[in-house]
Amino acid sequence: MTYDIEFCFELGLADDQISVAEGRRESHAADWGASQLDEGVVPDAVVWPESTGDVSAVLAAATDRGVPVTPYAAGTGLEGNAVPAHGGISLDLTRMNAVVDYRPADFQIDVQPGLLGSAVDEFAGDDGLFFPPLPSSGNISTIGGMIATDASGMQTVKYGEVADWVLGLEAVLADGTVIRTGSRAVKTSSGYNLTELLIGSEGTLAVVTEATLELAGRPAQKSGVRAIFETLDAATAAVSDTVRSGVDVARIEVVDGLSARMANAYQGSDLPDAPMVFLEFHANHGVDEEVALCRSIFEEYALDRFETDGEGTEMADLWTARRDLAYAVASYDADLDPLHPGDVTVPISAYPEIVRETKRLAEEADLLVPCFGHAGDGNLHYSVLVDRSDPQLVERGEELYAAIVDRAIELGGTATGEHGIGQGKREYMEPEHGDGAVDAMRSIKRALDPTGTLNPGKIFPETESGERVCDPVSEG
Amino acid sequence: MTYDIEFCFELGLADDQISVAEGRRESHAADWGASQLDEGVVPDAVVWPESTGDVSAVLAAATDRGVPVTPYAAGTGLEGNAVPAHGGISLDLTRMNAVVDYRPADFQIDVQPGLLGSAVDEFAGDDGLFFPPLPSSGNISTIGGMIATDASGMQTVKYGEVADWVLGLEAVLADGTVIRTGSRAVKTSSGYNLTELLIGSEGTLAVVTEATLELAGRPAQKSGVRAIFETLDAATAAVSDTVRSGVDVARIEVVDGLSARMANAYQGSDLPDAPMVFLEFHANHGVDEEVALCRSIFEEYALDRFETDGEGTEMADLWTARRDLAYAVASYDADLDPLHPGDVTVPISAYPEIVRETKRLAEEADLLVPCFGHAGDGNLHYSVLVDRSDPQLVERGEELYAAIVDRAIELGGTATGEHGIGQGKREYMEPEHGDGAVDAMRSIKRALDPTGTLNPGKIFPETESGERVCDPVSEG
Repeated sequence: MTYDIEFCFELGLADDQISVAEGRRESHAADWGASQLDEGVVPDAVVWPESTGDVSAVLAAATDRGVPVTPYAAGTGLEGNAVPAHGGISLDLTRMNAVVDYRPADFQIDVQPGLLGSAVDEFAGDDGLFFPPLPSSGNISTIGGMIATDASGMQTVKYGEVADWVLGLEAVLADGTVIRTGSRAVKTSSGYNLTELLIGSEGTLAVVTEATLELAGRPAQKSGVRAIFETLDAATAAVSDTVRSGVDVARIEVVDGLSARMANAYQGSDLPDAPMVFLEFHANHGVDEEVALCRSIFEEYALDRFETDGEGTEMADLWTARRDLAYAVASYDADLDPLHPGDVTVPISAYPEIVRETKRLAEEADLLVPCFGHAGDGNLHYSVLVDRSDPQLVERGEELYAAIVDRAIELGGTATGEHGIGQGKREYMEPEHGDGAVDAMRSIKRALDPTGTLNPGKIFPETESGERVCDPVSEG
Repeated sequence: MTYDIEFCFELGLADDQISVAEGRRESHAADWGASQLDEGVVPDAVVWPESTGDVSAVLAAATDRGVPVTPYAAGTGLEGNAVPAHGGISLDLTRMNAVVDYRPADFQIDVQPGLLGSAVDEFAGDDGLFFPPLPSSGNISTIGGMIATDASGMQTVKYGEVADWVLGLEAVLADGTVIRTGSRAVKTSSGYNLTELLIGSEGTLAVVTEATLELAGRPAQKSGVRAIFETLDAATAAVSDTVRSGVDVARIEVVDGLSARMANAYQGSDLPDAPMVFLEFHANHGVDEEVALCRSIFEEYALDRFETDGEGTEMADLWTARRDLAYAVASYDADLDPLHPGDVTVPISAYPEIVRETKRLAEEADLLVPCFGHAGDGNLHYSVLVDRSDPQLVERGEELYAAIVDRAIELGGTATGEHGIGQGKREYMEPEHGDGAVDAMRSIKRALDPTGTLNPGKIFPETESGERVCDPVSEG
């Protein structure tokens, strides 16, 4: 289906703010999670707004004409979140990347959505401030994308997720109305929490045009640790126990032996072929006591080595290895592709179980499934590697992938801890939330975007693949 | 207006679950913030559900008949939040007060809404766990009420508000549909954040029937401090500076000299007639360093005394005095009534300004306005005391009260940090949020409660006092 997007040229935008060139359209047809061009997902036009007014004008006109609009920025989403599934306009927000206001006395910064996450840290770094929930992809992904999926990262175990650090938003509704949500006060009980409703809604309810972020003061002390375990089960059990013991840890990441081998192949590191836990501790004082407390708990499990920073371990290299694991997995074997990026999260007491079960299922299916993740949150990243030229392998891989998500939900967890639903996980919405809750979400979608303009084909399971959650007024 | 509530007797409830007796109805006609019976706010019936099924049956039938339902529990709200403003049914949730499940290994507890907040701490205390955002009223107010207003308390400066400690909810929509929101995982990016949407919605979108709360481990060290300043301005400036310096403080409460005098009169304490700051520090180690850091900052201002626990100061008594300040203010002078409970919150850098402005306005109006509050959050509680028999004084008091709220909003703050909008602050919704955002909230209200069954007359400014946000299907 194609839409008539001629109206975009009548909105007073500059020539270089609109493109219908095939190359530009194709570059906005996919994200990391949907890296292959499927028929029908190439947008009809790409528009680069440079102001909130531009966004408002595009949305009002598009809604008027029943043309879908899908927000886009860095394209680093892993579930097809920014793919223009129904065509129409790809609204590329990367030019709206300014720091609008900075109030260090309140630990607050107002930024536009196209700003890279790491740019916030660079901007505020001289004042000793930082944005704690930055994901591992923070140097290539945008604040807008992080808000769209309620992203989180390695430091979430101590500091929380993106939603915990957003005080308010400016956003444009489907009909072009510009709203402001939240407050600059650190708490408010005034009205419905539209801020939290928009965070994680993946651009299906509004387009965020500005965000007021909270920042934190850099801790005076940091300490890094690498712990190597004899078994993966020992590693996950030690992590679960540590978190429940209230040890004040800022990062606690599990990496299995298979992932370690892949990291070594990718970047020439020499990680041992064994289950590992990387940790970082942040404190104003007493960081050594926390490390010691952690060590004492780890020693109750099958611990092989416990190395602190400088003690034979260069933590900076380890964090780089950890950060780049997704690339390492993808490039491990030219014949093997990761099927989807798994991102389940379970209650911390169930973490050993979900990892054990994942490894058992992988062995049973005879497939490579490297595992790593933000273990302190109960988060597991797993990839199912298959030879895509073999349909039987792909099917077996898909079954394995789904079985792990199902098991996470059974354990009281969620189908996605930080990557969002996008296109990839829509089928898990009803198993996780139940029909009633999904219907309530649909009601909210219809209330705020009655014509289904914004990012159609995402989050909600659809009865037919082409059906939009809300009926468009008209289609071209 | 009265409604026919005979249908309540046909829902299979026990005899003692429904009452139309005048005394029971009148006891549900007001809360602390609306302590006088106004014409028309007495409910037509009080219903005490004992299960989620009971709540569902009542809501489905009431919605079918266009009868308003207003959730009620302890009645400790300060903005008329639980007053049945349009009559109908007062749904008293105090019998649903069970601990449904307790998972100490995950620091989680599932409770019903009628449970007192302090009961959670009593239940989990043997495991060294506690519910950090408990408000000062936690021993007499319920978890459901705290969720309805997104309450917070003295420890919010360190630990956050109620919303930060709720992982998921069971709730009943206006049509009787039971939904579950959230997850037992500590983070999720799956679908719209219905949990956060319902928290703070004051029972206007759904009736919460169960909540999954997170708990925290009790800190190993606690230390209390009382600091006495020469001027209120010095006290608030010192607080603002301390918070911005990243001192790890768990409570930081300002009490002005007038409030101190009132506390002394109420409970025979001997607080000095001077501006004070009460503090508490929580840590696993290094608590003395934090106290010392705080002291060094305080000493840059006009500090009179800095007393740590045991050093001439019994902190337990001070916290009791602080906790009971609302009562002390109310009972200070038989001829003077507090007009409304003020609860504005501003960015921390603006805290000295809002307090200074409040005192200046009070002096100008020649009215008593005691001030105290959770200063670390930028929160100010103020009461305007007037002789209600003098209409001119009442008018002057109302103007003063409103001027302070207006100023808080101008400073980037909120009309209510923790008590909600209820009936009392509806006029500030549009000045604070703008028409567009309030309209978006109205759309959500209409989407989830199209007949306006749930707690009508709250949150939204109405063009006429009797108009419901959503039109009822029929009224008796």
